[in-house]
Amino acid sequence: MLSTMQDARLQIRRLLEHGAALHASATVDTAAPGGLRRVPYARIGADAAALAHALGELGVGEGDRVGTFMWNNAEHLTACLAVPSMGAVLHPLDARLPGEQIVRLAEHAEDRVLIADEALLPHLGPLLPQMKTVEHVIVNRAGGTGAGPAVPSGVTVHEYAALLDGRPPAYPWPDLDERAPAAICYAGDGSRAPKGVVHSHRSIYLHALSAAMPDAFGLSSGDKVLAVVPPSCALGWGLPYLAFLTGASLAMPDRFQAPQALAGFIAASRPTKGAAPLRVWRDLLAHIEADPDADLSSLTEVFADGRPCSPDLLEGYERRGVTLLHVWGAAAAPARPPADATGAGARHYRLAQGRLPASVQARLVGPDGAALPHDDFSVGELQLRGPWIAGSYHRDEAPGDFHDGWLRTGETGRISPDGYLTVTGRLADARRDDHAGAG
Amino acid sequence: MLSTMQDARLQIRRLLEHGAALHASATVDTAAPGGLRRVPYARIGADAAALAHALGELGVGEGDRVGTFMWNNAEHLTACLAVPSMGAVLHPLDARLPGEQIVRLAEHAEDRVLIADEALLPHLGPLLPQMKTVEHVIVNRAGGTGAGPAVPSGVTVHEYAALLDGRPPAYPWPDLDERAPAAICYAGDGSRAPKGVVHSHRSIYLHALSAAMPDAFGLSSGDKVLAVVPPSCALGWGLPYLAFLTGASLAMPDRFQAPQALAGFIAASRPTKGAAPLRVWRDLLAHIEADPDADLSSLTEVFADGRPCSPDLLEGYERRGVTLLHVWGAAAAPARPPADATGAGARHYRLAQGRLPASVQARLVGPDGAALPHDDFSVGELQLRGPWIAGSYHRDEAPGDFHDGWLRTGETGRISPDGYLTVTGRLADARRDDHAGAG
Repeated sequence: MLSTMQDARLQIRRLLEHGAALHASATVDTAAPGGLRRVPYARIGADAAALAHALGELGVGEGDRVGTFMWNNAEHLTACLAVPSMGAVLHPLDARLPGEQIVRLAEHAEDRVLIADEALLPHLGPLLPQMKTVEHVIVNRAGGTGAGPAVPSGVTVHEYAALLDGRPPAYPWPDLDERAPAAICYAGDGSRAPKGVVHSHRSIYLHALSAAMPDAFGLSSGDKVLAVVPPSCALGWGLPYLAFLTGASLAMPDRFQAPQALAGFIAASRPTKGAAPLRVWRDLLAHIEADPDADLSSLTEVFADGRPCSPDLLEGYERRGVTLLHVWGAAAAPARPPADATGAGARHYRLAQGRLPASVQARLVGPDGAALPHDDFSVGELQLRGPWIAGSYHRDEAPGDFHDGWLRTGETGRISPDGYLTVTGRLADARRDDHAGAG
Repeated sequence: MLSTMQDARLQIRRLLEHGAALHASATVDTAAPGGLRRVPYARIGADAAALAHALGELGVGEGDRVGTFMWNNAEHLTACLAVPSMGAVLHPLDARLPGEQIVRLAEHAEDRVLIADEALLPHLGPLLPQMKTVEHVIVNRAGGTGAGPAVPSGVTVHEYAALLDGRPPAYPWPDLDERAPAAICYAGDGSRAPKGVVHSHRSIYLHALSAAMPDAFGLSSGDKVLAVVPPSCALGWGLPYLAFLTGASLAMPDRFQAPQALAGFIAASRPTKGAAPLRVWRDLLAHIEADPDADLSSLTEVFADGRPCSPDLLEGYERRGVTLLHVWGAAAAPARPPADATGAGARHYRLAQGRLPASVQARLVGPDGAALPHDDFSVGELQLRGPWIAGSYHRDEAPGDFHDGWLRTGETGRISPDGYLTVTGRLADARRDDHAGAG
């Protein structure tokens, strides 16, 4: 007996087409000097098609890497959707990294084209001569500063707006294998060279479906999400894809991320939810506690990555009617307490880092390699398995990071019987290598 | 460049294991004479393992069909999870069909084992001698009537409780291809023999992820869903799988589906949401309007399949604080109005049959085969494409039902630019056959 179901593939292009057509009037707000720019998803869809035509003309083909050196803004969102949809591979670079590391990652990923914000050109310019694989730089001047690019020889510079101008608002998106590469993000803990994780269309799509669920981010077309977390960090927790999947609008702060600017942007754009590293929420709270006019009234809940999360921080947001929930990167769902937990019980859950969704399994492994019970007490290394969990790295063996088909996260913690993960520390790297040798 | 993600498969066993462990204290309530039976998901998980051991002992192997002839109850839920998880294929039979059709479907699917409610034995007994492929009948007497089975020769009868008793509460679930068959449901419009659609693990899993989203059923671990729609109808809109995916509890009415009994069960079990054919909601409303003591206060929204839905019905539920939303089988999401639609605008959306989720595409085809615009005005045949949409039928060619990789639903309607589907009628079968001949 065979299944009689159609074999529709899970592809980013489907999310792009869906959001641009069925949620045409949802919008992405981008913070701009003195206000914001608002672009509907219909326009993002047309721009994504135009960008794909332009990239194709520059010679970008299936599997080629297109790097981005951008803040969170409408043009970055466009690239996040267009590049994988055309069969190329998105590589969001983290502009906060030291210059030599940015060069190394662009080379390691073999980026052929870079799309860069004008405001970041002073940082990028001096690095370009060392990026041997980069042939084209596309400069996004939307909401820009007027800073001129420093153009090394051998690299062609294009203006983003001019490059897209007049191109067709539709594109014959290819039908790709759902396991084809869609994006590469590098991650590291500072103790060693960052490792490249190549997301597939399938992994991004499945993560987005899972993360949209009510007990995860709970995103609907009535939401607007403040997306501070950058695409360079686990694809910004998948928010560009979640937004087009669900029709939730986006609020992107561009380079205006200092607490005062962010508070002003929140008041102007009025997001219902927010996603940012914990330190952003901590700094924002400190700012608004000193500013009686700050207006967070549109926010209902915000998601924070990082630890430790102090009860003070939870309470500070609670006093403003905002629920702060922990997340642990994009691996798990937020640590949302069960519906029947109240008071101290709920607080206990909220100090965890996340909760396992159905598609991700975790196990705890002790120093001797034995599996430990999920009793919210035993502490061991957290290991993960699932369709959006890394199974290897791009051009980097690191066998110590994988064991028996599980990702060794290198973090220690405990797991509760109902699937809440609490991170308690990091393994010494030496132990990770030892264990791998024995495995 | 290759994706570096793990290749975890989408399997029913993952939902079963997840729900039974992480949502161990979620429960399924089954209506019983004078009250209800409540079973936690941890117990459903253990029973599913025991049932799989028992079925294996009866000779059920990978791909073998196990029919169910049951009302919606805890034991049916157990079978919905256990049978696919062990690699066999669930075949829920619709006890409301005429006897000769039930016989034909059991034969067409080649059911080897039937699990039957005691209360349905008087109906099943006379049919058994004609079901040539059935070797074993397992009788579920939980909440039963004490009716004795009529046992034809050549069929072995087992008691469900005795068969499971003492078996291990864990099972070595196999690792299956996600496109392996999981369940078969037959559907027809009365004008011809029902067609068998074989759901795969992948199609069920992807549908559940999509249907859980806030703009679809919006299910969380804080919900309890009254599941009146039977598994024989598109796997009960996937609710057994949605429940274990999300941790939402279930309320199953067993054979107590008359309006008064259903109202009493709702008052006792206190579901937050409900899923049933439109006529069930219509009859229930008529009943409670005559009964001042009826208590629907736990319900927030209910999902109704069927048409036409009168504004009276919407308003009747609205007066009781319950939002009634249309669904169109399991193909699309409910017709939930956009967040910014109010008054007459929202009402217009709520009279549609459903809204397209990202994974399902629809097109409208006119009598001449031309594609019609999605302008909420043009009327044509609704055709569907997506990972949980049929691409063929089990042992039945019916080429007129498929065209170019799309399912021809045989229903006519219109599609709005934002993806709302409104069904207006049915194609004459003759036209469907004509068109297929030309295609």
